[in-house]
Amino acid sequence: MVSTTMADVPVPHGRNFLMVPGPTNVPQRVQNAMHRNSEDHRSLDFPKLGKTALEEMKRVFMCTRGHAFIFPGTGTLGWEAALSNTLSPGDRVVTVRFGQFSHLWADMMQRLGLDVIALDVEWGEGPQRDIIERLIREDTGHRIQALCVVHNETTTGVTSDIPGLRAILDRYRHPALYMVDGVSSIGAMPFKFDEWRVDLAITGSQKALMLPAGLGLVCASPKALEHSKRAKLPRVYMSFDDHLKSNADGFFPYTPSIPLLYGLLEAVKMLEEEGMENVWARHFKLAEGVRRAVAAWNLKLCCRDRARLSDTVTTVMLPPGVDGVEVVKVAYQKYNLSLGAGLMSLRGKAFRISSLGDLNELTILGALAGVEMTLRDCGYRGFQLGAGVAAAADYYQAHAVQTRGFSNAVAKI
Amino acid sequence: MVSTTMADVPVPHGRNFLMVPGPTNVPQRVQNAMHRNSEDHRSLDFPKLGKTALEEMKRVFMCTRGHAFIFPGTGTLGWEAALSNTLSPGDRVVTVRFGQFSHLWADMMQRLGLDVIALDVEWGEGPQRDIIERLIREDTGHRIQALCVVHNETTTGVTSDIPGLRAILDRYRHPALYMVDGVSSIGAMPFKFDEWRVDLAITGSQKALMLPAGLGLVCASPKALEHSKRAKLPRVYMSFDDHLKSNADGFFPYTPSIPLLYGLLEAVKMLEEEGMENVWARHFKLAEGVRRAVAAWNLKLCCRDRARLSDTVTTVMLPPGVDGVEVVKVAYQKYNLSLGAGLMSLRGKAFRISSLGDLNELTILGALAGVEMTLRDCGYRGFQLGAGVAAAADYYQAHAVQTRGFSNAVAKI
Amino acid sequence: MVSTTMADVPVPHGRNFLMVPGPTNVPQRVQNAMHRNSEDHRSLDFPKLGKTALEEMKRVFMCTRGHAFIFPGTGTLGWEAALSNTLSPGDRVVTVRFGQFSHLWADMMQRLGLDVIALDVEWGEGPQRDIIERLIREDTGHRIQALCVVHNETTTGVTSDIPGLRAILDRYRHPALYMVDGVSSIGAMPFKFDEWRVDLAITGSQKALMLPAGLGLVCASPKALEHSKRAKLPRVYMSFDDHLKSNADGFFPYTPSIPLLYGLLEAVKMLEEEGMENVWARHFKLAEGVRRAVAAWNLKLCCRDRARLSDTVTTVMLPPGVDGVEVVKVAYQKYNLSLGAGLMSLRGKAFRISSLGDLNELTILGALAGVEMTLRDCGYRGFQLGAGVAAAADYYQAHAVQTRGFSNAVAKI
Amino acid sequence: MVSTTMADVPVPHGRNFLMVPGPTNVPQRVQNAMHRNSEDHRSLDFPKLGKTALEEMKRVFMCTRGHAFIFPGTGTLGWEAALSNTLSPGDRVVTVRFGQFSHLWADMMQRLGLDVIALDVEWGEGPQRDIIERLIREDTGHRIQALCVVHNETTTGVTSDIPGLRAILDRYRHPALYMVDGVSSIGAMPFKFDEWRVDLAITGSQKALMLPAGLGLVCASPKALEHSKRAKLPRVYMSFDDHLKSNADGFFPYTPSIPLLYGLLEAVKMLEEEGMENVWARHFKLAEGVRRAVAAWNLKLCCRDRARLSDTVTTVMLPPGVDGVEVVKVAYQKYNLSLGAGLMSLRGKAFRISSLGDLNELTILGALAGVEMTLRDCGYRGFQLGAGVAAAADYYQAHAVQTRGFSNAVAKI
Repeated sequence: MVSTTMADVPVPHGRNFLMVPGPTNVPQRVQNAMHRNSEDHRSLDFPKLGKTALEEMKRVFMCTRGHAFIFPGTGTLGWEAALSNTLSPGDRVVTVRFGQFSHLWADMMQRLGLDVIALDVEWGEGPQRDIIERLIREDTGHRIQALCVVHNETTTGVTSDIPGLRAILDRYRHPALYMVDGVSSIGAMPFKFDEWRVDLAITGSQKALMLPAGLGLVCASPKALEHSKRAKLPRVYMSFDDHLKSNADGFFPYTPSIPLLYGLLEAVKMLEEEGMENVWARHFKLAEGVRRAVAAWNLKLCCRDRARLSDTVTTVMLPPGVDGVEVVKVAYQKYNLSLGAGLMSLRGKAFRISSLGDLNELTILGALAGVEMTLRDCGYRGFQLGAGVAAAADYYQAHAVQTRGFSNAVAKI
Repeated sequence: MVSTTMADVPVPHGRNFLMVPGPTNVPQRVQNAMHRNSEDHRSLDFPKLGKTALEEMKRVFMCTRGHAFIFPGTGTLGWEAALSNTLSPGDRVVTVRFGQFSHLWADMMQRLGLDVIALDVEWGEGPQRDIIERLIREDTGHRIQALCVVHNETTTGVTSDIPGLRAILDRYRHPALYMVDGVSSIGAMPFKFDEWRVDLAITGSQKALMLPAGLGLVCASPKALEHSKRAKLPRVYMSFDDHLKSNADGFFPYTPSIPLLYGLLEAVKMLEEEGMENVWARHFKLAEGVRRAVAAWNLKLCCRDRARLSDTVTTVMLPPGVDGVEVVKVAYQKYNLSLGAGLMSLRGKAFRISSLGDLNELTILGALAGVEMTLRDCGYRGFQLGAGVAAAADYYQAHAVQTRGFSNAVAKI
Repeated sequence: MVSTTMADVPVPHGRNFLMVPGPTNVPQRVQNAMHRNSEDHRSLDFPKLGKTALEEMKRVFMCTRGHAFIFPGTGTLGWEAALSNTLSPGDRVVTVRFGQFSHLWADMMQRLGLDVIALDVEWGEGPQRDIIERLIREDTGHRIQALCVVHNETTTGVTSDIPGLRAILDRYRHPALYMVDGVSSIGAMPFKFDEWRVDLAITGSQKALMLPAGLGLVCASPKALEHSKRAKLPRVYMSFDDHLKSNADGFFPYTPSIPLLYGLLEAVKMLEEEGMENVWARHFKLAEGVRRAVAAWNLKLCCRDRARLSDTVTTVMLPPGVDGVEVVKVAYQKYNLSLGAGLMSLRGKAFRISSLGDLNELTILGALAGVEMTLRDCGYRGFQLGAGVAAAADYYQAHAVQTRGFSNAVAKI
Repeated sequence: MVSTTMADVPVPHGRNFLMVPGPTNVPQRVQNAMHRNSEDHRSLDFPKLGKTALEEMKRVFMCTRGHAFIFPGTGTLGWEAALSNTLSPGDRVVTVRFGQFSHLWADMMQRLGLDVIALDVEWGEGPQRDIIERLIREDTGHRIQALCVVHNETTTGVTSDIPGLRAILDRYRHPALYMVDGVSSIGAMPFKFDEWRVDLAITGSQKALMLPAGLGLVCASPKALEHSKRAKLPRVYMSFDDHLKSNADGFFPYTPSIPLLYGLLEAVKMLEEEGMENVWARHFKLAEGVRRAVAAWNLKLCCRDRARLSDTVTTVMLPPGVDGVEVVKVAYQKYNLSLGAGLMSLRGKAFRISSLGDLNELTILGALAGVEMTLRDCGYRGFQLGAGVAAAADYYQAHAVQTRGFSNAVAKI
């Protein structure tokens, strides 16, 4: 007989509302594309897969020259691959710290033995152009080998002005490599490798590409590839050179994750079916709904400059007395809602809502309702229940477009 | 280069919010349980699967005696199997029509050549005990061979008092078979085959069992099985007798859908892990939230008697001037939200929100927000945006229980 | 520590070699096509799926007129649907029994109350044209309403001459409906609904269509549809009429198994990519290899007429002293090989090897090696180990065609 | 109408026979375990998954002390992680080159700036104990920091005597770290980290663990962990230290591939259900069948010492005039059979048959039949068709054990 007594531990039902900025929801199409038996990565048919994947990656970066590398690994590996393939021990690099991820990347630079000038910016702000400009202007001897910037700080929901910083290098004809971490932006927000003349861009599979973690993706300009010939930092697994040799024939220097390659093709196909500008517009719309809700809750965004708002993650500041650690915990335990926690100095003071990847308006609205219940559970009373949802719904309704049911068929029921 | 021009036809993103009362969402666990290669349905190992599935089905019906049949088919087949295995042409049956599904079942009875007394009840009401009681009381010659009742009218969101109607048969010691359509109730709302002394109960795989359509499930009491020996309606595919012979050894008389059998085991396992009383309580809670939202929208339920409210589907009446066909269409086209349409006489006048199967509070809240936007799109102004979501959230918050994150581990991030 | 002691019960590894004539191996592509969440079968987008599936089914039957019905059910349901939609109680039908499945179909006809003339043919032979011709010729009053023939007797591996029997009806201008069970032939061996002027053809999803069981598929000619208007056998679930009404708009009269519809589309796509004539040629080639092996084992086929050999299942006769039940058991228990058992009068005297569905030469050769080991285990010494495999391999090598690796890429390794 | 014309390019059918030594076949159970949506890798529930995976990995290595690291990456990354975490630039290491993989590892050591003593052994032989013993004995100043040995040379099918080489270090109380590449052995052939006192062992997910590529797995002894505190080779992504800090709480320092972690748990569960000694015995049996076939073909193994035979890959030498590149190509193009090519100096002179992972006897026998047809296609006439299959089948039959069908149920059919 089916038990009719109360179970000791209630079980979750339905689907977890996954609102962290990666790993993001994997669409069924992508899951199915990955669901296949192994195949010989040295077969006569493999290069078709390999070459297509490599070419599609370049399209995602909006790169027509240079090369996109696909490493079994993560975005962290991408960071290291970009640095170690193009720099030598002691090389001077300039970077900006304005959140946990830019901190971690700067930390990596130091651990690799580079001479790091790390500009600290108050969290909530983005890279300050004037300081960077001064550094570049004064570096007439061209000691600075690279300018390294995080495009979208996942900690604070603040973006950098990537073309604007490029313009500084141009103004002073500075030859430094321009490295950009686009882990939580590329594929979701405008990113134009060629047009912005980025030299090294990095992303991972588990963000806008809607795959599981497992691919560290690095796009390198011809100039970066040129640097890789004389860079002295040791690297073998991450070696551009080894990949270039194998990639030329559509192979990889060691066993690639074949399911992820198939998943990558399907994910890029989805993005292309929608059109990248539509994808960017969709992320803007979803994030804007979140921001309207935050305003209706009478809470503040971490990002202080509207021009620098992230469309993939919104960092929400909590008032004194409301514990952000508790918010994340309660949301998960009681509402099956996964929010991003406040990181490092924002620990306990903020939480994050992602609008990245395979989500839609109703997913966001359900999540916002979950946040509202959670905020009340955690003692915040500065809003009326439903206010955030209503503000977002009002915006979404005004900007809704038809996406399904274009046929005229009507079920006679 | 990835296209940067607007696609002609925007594509849906994220997951469809599937709020129709079947087919319901298939949990990943169940999907994976079904994802397997074929196997020999005559193998030495097959009977373990067959017997377990047959036994588990009885547990879902809360039946310890009798037999639960698993037909490749649907609930409609279940209706026909119940009738054709136990009745003969010209047999008198009593049934109640209070929505589309009870209408269709009554229609089937007539087409099979039975002598049908169909009691019509105004939609929104349930079976009227007094009329049924009179029929039974007056049938001293026991011409009535069966009383057939739909437990949960998916059209109107009205339930029948199954034990109450049983009591009528008992009171007059009437030997009629008691047949119950539990297609949209069994596994989600209290249903007790043995305790209520039901003779034939019918359900399908695509409702509370969270599987795709493809199984017509019929539970038969020993008395029903006895009737099957002399029933004269022709049947071969649906023959109880053929199944009983094969089922005795754990086999089926023709090829079963093996993936669905594995899926069935996993689905029942999920229900049992939660505990059936918890499952019922969960469906009540989710439906109650929907009802609170409906009230906040200043709309009426189709069901007029609170004691007869369905916990799996809520039928919402629309005011004049708001077209229900349009509501369903707009919800789908603009918000990727699948609502149930008003059926037959309710066409255009109502819509339905299911809370059946693998859903959670946030799914409902997202869907309710979608309904709110849709109602506004369709010209209804009788509520303030967010009001329904707030009413449901208020209720869900008050009744929330922890379902995840019982460990005390905290990520040091 | 991982246990280093011997487990009590060894576990199977690798993939079961499934050589039964259904359910057959489900290709990964088809599995993935079915692996999806539910969707509303009344949505605006559903009819595209419904209509495409219905049209594709007609293509598989090679039918341009008439209608192909897709029932949630099995081939057995297909048998019953064909009969009950076109005949009335007491109608005379002629059928031929030459194996278990033709026996079961004839049995169904009797149970449905038809007046059945069942011609018994010795197993190993196919329908005898002369007896059928006499019956038709002498039936000048056209009492015979239907001629019902199994195309491919899965029991014996014997096929019927479907166009030849059609010619008999034509010769005498006999109006009987021509019903053909093509369960284990359609999609794998030549079957031409229009050209052979079949009136009702039946198949199931778990054979040549490489899906799990769960669809009973019936193709009906305009003449059969005409008959359905006056046929008096009761049917509701299986009613052609209900389906025709819903199918006209791309819907179904009750919830279809949506995953199976998607799987059907993918399976038909695979057949079409290969080209039906290639599919037929492939099945011939695979079966011919099996037959060569049987000859090399010095065993006899059940089928006595080479012109009537099945290309989907080969029934192998065992010599006295070798128990067919044991052969099937040992193959499964020791070699993870699923063979078809000898059925009914062939029980213990024969076993069956299927070459139906998603198999290739190496699958067959591995299975043949498994049969060889099994035959030795069971005491048969009439061949040299490897002889059957060699005979089949010799044939396959001579007829091998390139199917992969058309690129000229060569891995530099 | 389904096309009845011959397609221009025939398509493969059935399943590819994947006989390369990795990536190996992924069992359905493991595929399904990986088929799931993303989840928050910082959730309260994640550490249970993380800790279990880390502990299970230690069990696979047969390690009770030390730590098993799970890197998103491959075995190549594992090589580099082992070296870079424990050594400093200029450190002397001894290694043996006896196939492509040991060559590549030695090459990596040089590129990382180590002082490499690479002992070249003729391919087909394993590491020579006397030379290694001399080096160790004479290194009284303990300049040698590490002895690095490939356990199973996937190129040649030759194994190293890992405990025997350990004994040399012990005999001279030499403190060098003992690093072992167990990529194509661990989980399939006996490997005992603790008992053999290995300091660093490396494997990948796509071999005996039956997963896709994507995990680089490194087991480190307490002594190796101690070394990691003072090793000076730069590493961040691969840093033991970062992992140890996060792993302590069940987390990872960057986003892990969650599907692969679930797949890992399922794969290890499968190995444990079977029992590791049974797993080893199974690999021995399958490989021995291959070797018997090779002998029956009158071909030679690359491995010259029977005591050093690999049980996961068999390298077969071809006679002059038979081109190994052609063998691999024809097998794939005509028989859908993926063989391993001869590598580097064996290119064109050998081919490889793997018996690693999720295979069974019939898979091997089918593959052997495919090799036989291929060898004939490529002009080799030194055997009678079927001879290799027969030799393997004879062996498999003699050593067959029951693995399925333990029930006594018999289908009454």
